[in-house]
Amino acid sequence: MMFAAGLGTAGTHRFQALPEQNMTSPDTHRDMANAIRFLSADAVEAANSGHPGLPMGAADIATVLFSRFLTFDPRAPHWADRDRFVFSAGHGSMLLYSLLYLLGYDGVGIDDLKAFRQLGSKTAGHPEYKHCEGIETTTGPLGQGLGNAVGMALAERIMNARFGDAIVDHRTYVLAGDGCLMEGLSQESIALAGHLRLSKLIVLWDDNGITIDGDVALSDSTDQMARFAASNWNTLRCDGHDQEAIAEAITAAQGSDRPTLIACKTNIGHGAPTKAGSAKAHGAPLGADEIAQMREALGWDHEPFEIPAAILDRWRLAGLRSSTHRKEWERRFAEIDAETRGEFERRVRGDLPSGFTQALQRCKRRFNEERPEIATRKASELALEVLNAVVVETIGGSADLTGSNNTRTSQTDAIAPGEYAGRYIHYGIREHGMAAAMNGLALHGGIIPYGGTFLVFSDYARGAMRLSALMGLRVVYVLTHDSIGLGEDGPTHQPVEHLASLRAMPNMQVFRPADAVETLECWQLALESRDAPSVLALSRQSLPTLRLDQHDENKSARGAYEISSTSGDAEVTIYATGSEVQIALAASTILEADGIPTRVVSVPCVELFDRQSPEYRSAMLDNGGLKVAIEAGVRQGWDHFVGRNGIFIGMDGFGASGPAPELYEHFGITTEAVVAAVRARLAPEPEES
Amino acid sequence: MMFAAGLGTAGTHRFQALPEQNMTSPDTHRDMANAIRFLSADAVEAANSGHPGLPMGAADIATVLFSRFLTFDPRAPHWADRDRFVFSAGHGSMLLYSLLYLLGYDGVGIDDLKAFRQLGSKTAGHPEYKHCEGIETTTGPLGQGLGNAVGMALAERIMNARFGDAIVDHRTYVLAGDGCLMEGLSQESIALAGHLRLSKLIVLWDDNGITIDGDVALSDSTDQMARFAASNWNTLRCDGHDQEAIAEAITAAQGSDRPTLIACKTNIGHGAPTKAGSAKAHGAPLGADEIAQMREALGWDHEPFEIPAAILDRWRLAGLRSSTHRKEWERRFAEIDAETRGEFERRVRGDLPSGFTQALQRCKRRFNEERPEIATRKASELALEVLNAVVVETIGGSADLTGSNNTRTSQTDAIAPGEYAGRYIHYGIREHGMAAAMNGLALHGGIIPYGGTFLVFSDYARGAMRLSALMGLRVVYVLTHDSIGLGEDGPTHQPVEHLASLRAMPNMQVFRPADAVETLECWQLALESRDAPSVLALSRQSLPTLRLDQHDENKSARGAYEISSTSGDAEVTIYATGSEVQIALAASTILEADGIPTRVVSVPCVELFDRQSPEYRSAMLDNGGLKVAIEAGVRQGWDHFVGRNGIFIGMDGFGASGPAPELYEHFGITTEAVVAAVRARLAPEPEES
Repeated sequence: MMFAAGLGTAGTHRFQALPEQNMTSPDTHRDMANAIRFLSADAVEAANSGHPGLPMGAADIATVLFSRFLTFDPRAPHWADRDRFVFSAGHGSMLLYSLLYLLGYDGVGIDDLKAFRQLGSKTAGHPEYKHCEGIETTTGPLGQGLGNAVGMALAERIMNARFGDAIVDHRTYVLAGDGCLMEGLSQESIALAGHLRLSKLIVLWDDNGITIDGDVALSDSTDQMARFAASNWNTLRCDGHDQEAIAEAITAAQGSDRPTLIACKTNIGHGAPTKAGSAKAHGAPLGADEIAQMREALGWDHEPFEIPAAILDRWRLAGLRSSTHRKEWERRFAEIDAETRGEFERRVRGDLPSGFTQALQRCKRRFNEERPEIATRKASELALEVLNAVVVETIGGSADLTGSNNTRTSQTDAIAPGEYAGRYIHYGIREHGMAAAMNGLALHGGIIPYGGTFLVFSDYARGAMRLSALMGLRVVYVLTHDSIGLGEDGPTHQPVEHLASLRAMPNMQVFRPADAVETLECWQLALESRDAPSVLALSRQSLPTLRLDQHDENKSARGAYEISSTSGDAEVTIYATGSEVQIALAASTILEADGIPTRVVSVPCVELFDRQSPEYRSAMLDNGGLKVAIEAGVRQGWDHFVGRNGIFIGMDGFGASGPAPELYEHFGITTEAVVAAVRARLAPEPEES
Repeated sequence: MMFAAGLGTAGTHRFQALPEQNMTSPDTHRDMANAIRFLSADAVEAANSGHPGLPMGAADIATVLFSRFLTFDPRAPHWADRDRFVFSAGHGSMLLYSLLYLLGYDGVGIDDLKAFRQLGSKTAGHPEYKHCEGIETTTGPLGQGLGNAVGMALAERIMNARFGDAIVDHRTYVLAGDGCLMEGLSQESIALAGHLRLSKLIVLWDDNGITIDGDVALSDSTDQMARFAASNWNTLRCDGHDQEAIAEAITAAQGSDRPTLIACKTNIGHGAPTKAGSAKAHGAPLGADEIAQMREALGWDHEPFEIPAAILDRWRLAGLRSSTHRKEWERRFAEIDAETRGEFERRVRGDLPSGFTQALQRCKRRFNEERPEIATRKASELALEVLNAVVVETIGGSADLTGSNNTRTSQTDAIAPGEYAGRYIHYGIREHGMAAAMNGLALHGGIIPYGGTFLVFSDYARGAMRLSALMGLRVVYVLTHDSIGLGEDGPTHQPVEHLASLRAMPNMQVFRPADAVETLECWQLALESRDAPSVLALSRQSLPTLRLDQHDENKSARGAYEISSTSGDAEVTIYATGSEVQIALAASTILEADGIPTRVVSVPCVELFDRQSPEYRSAMLDNGGLKVAIEAGVRQGWDHFVGRNGIFIGMDGFGASGPAPELYEHFGITTEAVVAAVRARLAPEPEES
């Protein structure tokens, strides 16, 4: 689908930030930057906690960027075509909060700065997405913001390819520190950005040469410029305290055909008389003496949190800088055809298209009829083939396991350097970078990202997955090869603890469907979950279709439900997930034949089950006789269902290399083992001897 | 402590692998390499699973390395001064297994190759440490081997600084693929290696331009040579199928004063007539037809798994190549003084020194007497101050949080480029690289590594931590700031799910000590655990000394124990860990005053508790009245202790930014909350209304 054809060619509407037009006098610039410095130092002092060094050191960079280059409107913080500013070095949060206050963002008052790092305030220790307007992403864990920014810059190109230059044409700026660049995640992110030639991505590196332990030279000798250049980046240097040098570098970066790194040489804690330039300025209050001396040295004779009207006015004026540009955009947007406009708005709002549910029900009925015996990863592909046709805003991908994750469908041409009309990203062998980029794609808006790797390699991506959960982003992790059922690749590739460890993460929905029908239902739930990421844990091995009822109801939405009931009171209840539900059902058939009433509860999503009514939960958990849980993973968490003395059939250590059926035998995860364990418990002295 | 002074100056004893001395005729080389190719292709075919492409493509590189350069002895695979060969691209495991068989490693017979990827065989899908001799580390998860190798190469320098050139003087070689280099972990590892100038580390990159999804160009445009050079590496290129070019490159690398990357241009699946050079050769059997054609094309008219005697002899001869060198080493080793020899052997065996227990008991008595009220991270530092004085083989470090993790003591001077006498590594902001390097330090032998970061950032290191656990390595993770108790930094920095998610990992011991005494006990257990890694989850905030009994017994070794008993039968049992044990004790005091007999069980290590006798476990878990668990993390796992209907006082979502005491109040993790919850349960209709 290509919208707004013809609008994509215009080039003159773009607001050009020409330095000469935006010159700020040296005095004004100094005052504006010092306002950031004092707000930051004083807020950290008031909180007796925080990081003054970065805001003070990067104040000049931020002043130049926000007052002369960034296209945004504090009165319309969600304006779709705004430039994105990603504050990757999130520990310096007071820089961002100072800017939001100074620029006049709604709801960020001086009292909010005074409440820095206090419980319930908008100004948390690190910038938290949704805590206040103007925070584009939650940062703090280093490298993540940079990874998000790559996703955002890619999202811009993807949306641009669909809606044209008139509607989508903005830049993504990042402020990153040494820590961001040292994290391995940064390599995955910059390699992806360089490869995809995301030329509208500009990283301002606060090159202050200091980390917590001391000089960067204690632990690193990397030539960052050469490193970025090796990944196809444009690289520039400037004095991070010289406003014209910063402006020149940004202007040059804007003209590059590649993403740009600007190394801004700065002095951490710039302005602090004795602590500037050292690790002492990094992560602790400067102290009253130091701040008093700083007031004197910088000629700033204003009380804490007091910004002289002239300086505040200058900042507020800067906040209005691109309002004309935004209005022009709105005029252009109003002029495009209603269908395109509606479609753009729908995607940006994040609403699913109208045909979604019907397409899904059709597919479900087909699965019911055809009863395919396929791996759930294959069922996921079939589901995606249907969903991708309707939900045109999905962007798929894989960390170099496309054929194994079954993440690609007929609709998803590859996105390639300079070509963004496709819908599939070859993320490369970069699980963490993929996850961080998917967060960025989701944060940007207009896109629903999903991406695949093996479940076991969620370990590599966990830092970014946690941020999907913390921010409540609709990101779908397609994690295949979800147990020892993957077979010969052995214990390094066999997840054992991963279902438990991902379920432990708040707000992460872990789905483990048992068959094609549940897989489709879980996909529906994942796409409908606007405020939570999802994991789809999918089998490598084939599984029969178990759900033969022709109901439109999404039973997986309950999290756990009776997939097989028994007449009268159950003497045994078996809980199982994914590939083990078939084992549970087979065991129940044998037990029923033995005259032991047995019910089976399929548990595709523990998190959703936890949210059900007490009555429903009780119906699944209470009574029901002897409790058994089957999952080819560790027991942790299952005592909630079966109790400490219940039976658990699963793993209690790492897996092994061998054909999958042999592994299931070896580790005793079989119908026979279930039946034997139940019989042994129900008849304490078995007759088999 | 510096041993063998004076022995470090000799330079002539080193076996110099001069290509001209080791020339292999082109025909012989071809035969030797083809032996690898056919063993690999045939084994994958027999298993109907595996990766033929890499072994076939890298056969020439491996042949040159093993037959002309590597210093090793298959008859003494644990010889301490052997060169290390790290097979980072572990999916190509048949390359390594072929080599082990061809070189005559004890216990690797042709039947083992025929059993490739079968359950119980030594030749697992990926190389598994300890499955057979000659496997230096478990690989498969990409990038990990490279990270391990950095640790091994550093270990060599550290041991060399202590024992001199005559005893420790070997190289570390890595075979890595594109996947290894794309993982972010590789950046952390190469930056660390380049910074520390580990000149005896040589990485052979199997530069075949192919990944699973297709050409590397689909997802990457990185100039790897420039990237490594940016991190202070020597970089070389060669034709990976030209034995003399490979030999020249290795010889040049051996002379470098920096670590070396050799880009060996290869053809994946080299020799396969139609599939070579494409992703088709990567990860699936070639098929009978292709292999038959290959036999014809390469003139290899031998049956599968049949290696002609002449070729096998040539390989076995290569296996004997450095036996003289090893014997010379043994002669030199026998000549050094007995004390140094004994100390070297002790460290390499991994035995703790004799003074260990006494030093520990002395410190424990001191804690008992002084009853310090300190954070457990500080208690850990005090414990380390004592332990580092005795256990001289510890090598500490931190991922740039030295002052926060309290990992440095008076004994641990920093290790710096070219200076390896110290005992402290500034790992930089590289959690994953640190963990992988620590695995390498432990694998090398002679060293017990510990390293710190915040508990929440274990997410970044999890890939390597899992390998510590899978390999059973004595690596100690010092993970501080272990709950919302860290305060203002907020939810990005507050672990909530991490205790549960790390406990879910098999063979990972998760310790969460409650006070200084338990901290010391947990350190003892961690250091004594030769076959398992440990996590020490430590508080940022101060905690009182709770263990006032003057027993030498290590109570933490039980995993869970009564820290406060009650007279008669308990009506309430409270389980707690770490900083929440004080809350449990305070609540029990109030409840006891109410006439409610209450006992408190401290649970410093769930994993150790699980290993206790049924009787002991029952004494802790059964009876005991109403059950309560307190932990400032998620509930997952605690139902094992308290049951589904027991009381849990902890977190059910992410944390928040604010002062720690306020957060504990806000999230209801307080003595009052515990008492109120117990009273409410014991008296269903409370009188407070």
